[in-house]
Amino acid sequence: MSATTQSPATTQRSAATQPVKGVVPPVLTPLNDDYSIDISTLKRHAERLIKAGVHGLFVLGSSGEVAFLTREQRREVIAAVIEQAQGRVPVIAGVIDMTTPRVIEHIKDAVSLGVDGLVATAPFYVRTHAVEIAEHFRQLHAAAPDTPLYAYNLPVSVHTVLEIGSLVELASEGVLAGVKDSGGNDGYTRALILARDKAGVENFVVLTGSETTVDFAYLAGADGVVPGLGNVDPVSYVTLHDLLVKGEFAEAARVQARITELFTIVGVGDASRMGGSSQGLGSFKAALHHLGVFPSGLMSRPHVALNSDERAAIATIVDAAKIIEP
Amino acid sequence: MSATTQSPATTQRSAATQPVKGVVPPVLTPLNDDYSIDISTLKRHAERLIKAGVHGLFVLGSSGEVAFLTREQRREVIAAVIEQAQGRVPVIAGVIDMTTPRVIEHIKDAVSLGVDGLVATAPFYVRTHAVEIAEHFRQLHAAAPDTPLYAYNLPVSVHTVLEIGSLVELASEGVLAGVKDSGGNDGYTRALILARDKAGVENFVVLTGSETTVDFAYLAGADGVVPGLGNVDPVSYVTLHDLLVKGEFAEAARVQARITELFTIVGVGDASRMGGSSQGLGSFKAALHHLGVFPSGLMSRPHVALNSDERAAIATIVDAAKIIEP
Amino acid sequence: MSATTQSPATTQRSAATQPVKGVVPPVLTPLNDDYSIDISTLKRHAERLIKAGVHGLFVLGSSGEVAFLTREQRREVIAAVIEQAQGRVPVIAGVIDMTTPRVIEHIKDAVSLGVDGLVATAPFYVRTHAVEIAEHFRQLHAAAPDTPLYAYNLPVSVHTVLEIGSLVELASEGVLAGVKDSGGNDGYTRALILARDKAGVENFVVLTGSETTVDFAYLAGADGVVPGLGNVDPVSYVTLHDLLVKGEFAEAARVQARITELFTIVGVGDASRMGGSSQGLGSFKAALHHLGVFPSGLMSRPHVALNSDERAAIATIVDAAKIIEP
Amino acid sequence: MSATTQSPATTQRSAATQPVKGVVPPVLTPLNDDYSIDISTLKRHAERLIKAGVHGLFVLGSSGEVAFLTREQRREVIAAVIEQAQGRVPVIAGVIDMTTPRVIEHIKDAVSLGVDGLVATAPFYVRTHAVEIAEHFRQLHAAAPDTPLYAYNLPVSVHTVLEIGSLVELASEGVLAGVKDSGGNDGYTRALILARDKAGVENFVVLTGSETTVDFAYLAGADGVVPGLGNVDPVSYVTLHDLLVKGEFAEAARVQARITELFTIVGVGDASRMGGSSQGLGSFKAALHHLGVFPSGLMSRPHVALNSDERAAIATIVDAAKIIEP
Repeated sequence: MSATTQSPATTQRSAATQPVKGVVPPVLTPLNDDYSIDISTLKRHAERLIKAGVHGLFVLGSSGEVAFLTREQRREVIAAVIEQAQGRVPVIAGVIDMTTPRVIEHIKDAVSLGVDGLVATAPFYVRTHAVEIAEHFRQLHAAAPDTPLYAYNLPVSVHTVLEIGSLVELASEGVLAGVKDSGGNDGYTRALILARDKAGVENFVVLTGSETTVDFAYLAGADGVVPGLGNVDPVSYVTLHDLLVKGEFAEAARVQARITELFTIVGVGDASRMGGSSQGLGSFKAALHHLGVFPSGLMSRPHVALNSDERAAIATIVDAAKIIEP
Repeated sequence: MSATTQSPATTQRSAATQPVKGVVPPVLTPLNDDYSIDISTLKRHAERLIKAGVHGLFVLGSSGEVAFLTREQRREVIAAVIEQAQGRVPVIAGVIDMTTPRVIEHIKDAVSLGVDGLVATAPFYVRTHAVEIAEHFRQLHAAAPDTPLYAYNLPVSVHTVLEIGSLVELASEGVLAGVKDSGGNDGYTRALILARDKAGVENFVVLTGSETTVDFAYLAGADGVVPGLGNVDPVSYVTLHDLLVKGEFAEAARVQARITELFTIVGVGDASRMGGSSQGLGSFKAALHHLGVFPSGLMSRPHVALNSDERAAIATIVDAAKIIEP
Repeated sequence: MSATTQSPATTQRSAATQPVKGVVPPVLTPLNDDYSIDISTLKRHAERLIKAGVHGLFVLGSSGEVAFLTREQRREVIAAVIEQAQGRVPVIAGVIDMTTPRVIEHIKDAVSLGVDGLVATAPFYVRTHAVEIAEHFRQLHAAAPDTPLYAYNLPVSVHTVLEIGSLVELASEGVLAGVKDSGGNDGYTRALILARDKAGVENFVVLTGSETTVDFAYLAGADGVVPGLGNVDPVSYVTLHDLLVKGEFAEAARVQARITELFTIVGVGDASRMGGSSQGLGSFKAALHHLGVFPSGLMSRPHVALNSDERAAIATIVDAAKIIEP
Repeated sequence: MSATTQSPATTQRSAATQPVKGVVPPVLTPLNDDYSIDISTLKRHAERLIKAGVHGLFVLGSSGEVAFLTREQRREVIAAVIEQAQGRVPVIAGVIDMTTPRVIEHIKDAVSLGVDGLVATAPFYVRTHAVEIAEHFRQLHAAAPDTPLYAYNLPVSVHTVLEIGSLVELASEGVLAGVKDSGGNDGYTRALILARDKAGVENFVVLTGSETTVDFAYLAGADGVVPGLGNVDPVSYVTLHDLLVKGEFAEAARVQARITELFTIVGVGDASRMGGSSQGLGSFKAALHHLGVFPSGLMSRPHVALNSDERAAIATIVDAAKIIEP
């Protein structure tokens, strides 16, 4: 990416110091047969999401295979999506790594490429205390004080739950601009929102990462959603968001139920021969392949590929969902 | 490191295609005040361990703060220790990262620097199946077929236990040269050794990572030990090893009991304000500082430092142990 | 309880073969100073709940200290509450024990006393497979085929999550009349309801056990709620229920937020000197003591009592909630 | 059991106030086809174990299906085995239940029947703090101050690990006479023994529950072993014990390796259709059936029975072990 193409985006992103709200899909990363990034498909996919009306793009999340991409590949993904977005929607990037010094390397890469926000987990692999997790976020923020930093609550991967009291304190300090909560516990999401409101913290958003309980999160006051399944059916998530901000909960719940039916694709892969990542991510990529958006469903190594029966079962579910192409 | 300094090590390492056995401490990584690697202390520390009679050096393990070091820092550590070792003992290196493609990057770095072995965990952060873990190790081996590859069983960090059947199969295929078992379950260690022997696999070593049950592991037939505490008291571990290979188990158990008393330093740090890594690693670094081996006990961010009371308590335990300086 | 007092209840309970719906508090068990059941307070408390408009009473749940009560004490509790209810609301009883044969003993006791439903968990303490859990419920049903049986999903105590597919199958077979879901995962609750509806199973209710996400559960189609906090503030839960069945979700969410504020009493007890049961149950009993409903907050052994500061902090929260006395 | 048959046992048990040491198998409970206790087989089996030279009998442990037996059945088991033992070896009994008041009921039953010791876990199903667990054991001891009380460390069932510091304190107070450690972590066993010795506590035994690492435990100073597999092959465990107390560790390790091979029977049952209890207990009962000791391998409900292929595979392993019949 040249400095020339980058600067317009930077200029147009003036509103981006506001935390991101609404539907912010964690963008999947298409791969070529040699496991390099399929840049042109990635850009086309980003365009498709923007056209569907999403409010932001989150690259390099778990669904974006961030854990499998090298540092150089991560830079390629960020550059491509920022170039495609052209400032129309904010682009935030995952800076996922084991500990503070390594995350800071990714932060510097991402900031230099012009991202509108950074998403970081607590340290993982190492055994840390809540005090250390808070210090971690403070140091990440110090490394890029002008870029909104979002904490990523993802216990299934990180094996710790971010403490609500600590998150609100970090928000008050200006360290955190928000939380992406993929903890799978909507009561926690509500408690976080209530604690935020009670403390009077502003400019701190709570985004749910749960595909199937967006209505619950919005009912509790959440600001947005980061749905992996939004890669497959972005229009439905935008519809759901619109209903929810209008307070039409009963109708939203019906849309949510339909989406939840589509979400059963993540259970198609045979758990006796593949892990949860191959099942979930594999189903999203297979769906996008079936829809003609991705030329293949290839996943990074060592994922196990879905077999033809599984892909056919996913196609059937996808067809039944009558997904509206943006 | 220049090609010139590297080649002698390579030449002298001819025996290194044999898996490593005996006492192989996971070398701690001393840091300067700016968190850069303190290379001269690192070399002096490696020399101290070699002088104590250890049989190999394992750099970039968990105790070596591998999770906190950048890719460039990891290369510095490997180069420094290989340069210091001069082929007198094999140097094996941790290549710890989330998934296959990222581990392979570290493997290429380590191999180009001339390591005698590679230590890798299963993927972490992502949810993988045993089939995927096996495929992971196969691909790591394919990336460096001439360098012995050791699987690192470390459920406390990786959150999966390596399956014994799978390990023995990978050993039979020539993928794995051994296992470093830090699973904390000595029954598992025995079962792995018995399964290896039953399958008739050769050139496959089992090394325990447990500081306090080395005698158990050797009684079951283990080939060596990778003790973090061996950084502090390498002579006792060499003594323990020598007794164990001679079959003097009762006397070995007495040495082991003394070492176990020294190991209580890992419990000194206050768990209400720091994580397990700060407690354990902090105590090792504090002990080495007290012994005059390290100029400071600084740990990578976001570790919490031990306070002066804690350091004093550790010093008392260390003094009581009457550690023999090599 | 004599046969005479029992029979009117039985007669009036004719509608009780229908699964219970609505607000069904898990009735707390007041204790005398010698740890015997305080029967008169228990009856007064049941009356208070009925007067508040609850739709059923669930005795011998976790909040009812079932795990601490002897078989004889359990019988006393059931008899007292059935006698007090006089058929005005259904009374269902927990039959919590480790395994099938022991649960069946409690079932026989409960049925002979005339309960309107039975609530059982999967086996615990022992390591069971989903196949065995299903067989467990089949055998419990066979022991009392005329009394509705509810499965209790309580992973925090039982350490297994009931499988949705298995629950729906058991519902189809007529084994289960419903589920009390205290799994803390509202996405699971929705998935269970959708699976039930898809399978076309009737007369199978889903009740949430989560005090702070009742609106979420009803939005997903849940039939009722079993709130421990409903012992303290039954009127608010009845209000919440009424709003939810009318589809007034936004207003319901406001009531739910107020209740969630009251629920913070469960976090007042100092976790460094007591377990979660003492914190949670202790706060409920302290609140009822403060409200004058219970003569004391005594809990079964080996619970740790809340201290006076903690009780005062709870009283402050309770007062702020302006609980409406039924 | 009449008072007459009971009194000789009581008289002869004068040495039983000493904690039990050596090989103390957790006695399996044979069942009749109607799931009642097969008393005559139970007595014959106890006799076989005594004849093999075991040092005590532990009835109503996990292997004894205590979790599945009613209170009345538990009494039958204790009475039968005490009657058979006739004071020749001490008989200790599991008093396993969820909480203090319920355990105390079992204690009173067991003491009235004349047991020589009581084995209790921490509370389970409920969420308890270490302080509460300690209080639990104090109250159990107060209920039977003259009968030795052993704490049972069984995290796989109880989901808490007993704290070493707390155990040593309870030993110092005279509350505990020992620990049966089935935690699967031999480093913990060593640390417990060292802490006991450092505190100078006497009359406090540490018994390992691990079938495959008895040599490790004795090397660390353990006083005995409670091996489920000792039901099948008691003679080998007695042989192992005799070698270990003589300090012949290398030879003991060879016996231990043979026993460990026999222990593979617990992995024969198909984990895709049964839980760990059915696999483990099922294999022990199948082995005893094959050896002609038990008329059937029936387990309590809801265990899944091993099928004929599995039973045949177990028989093959048992035959290969050339078990010496006492």
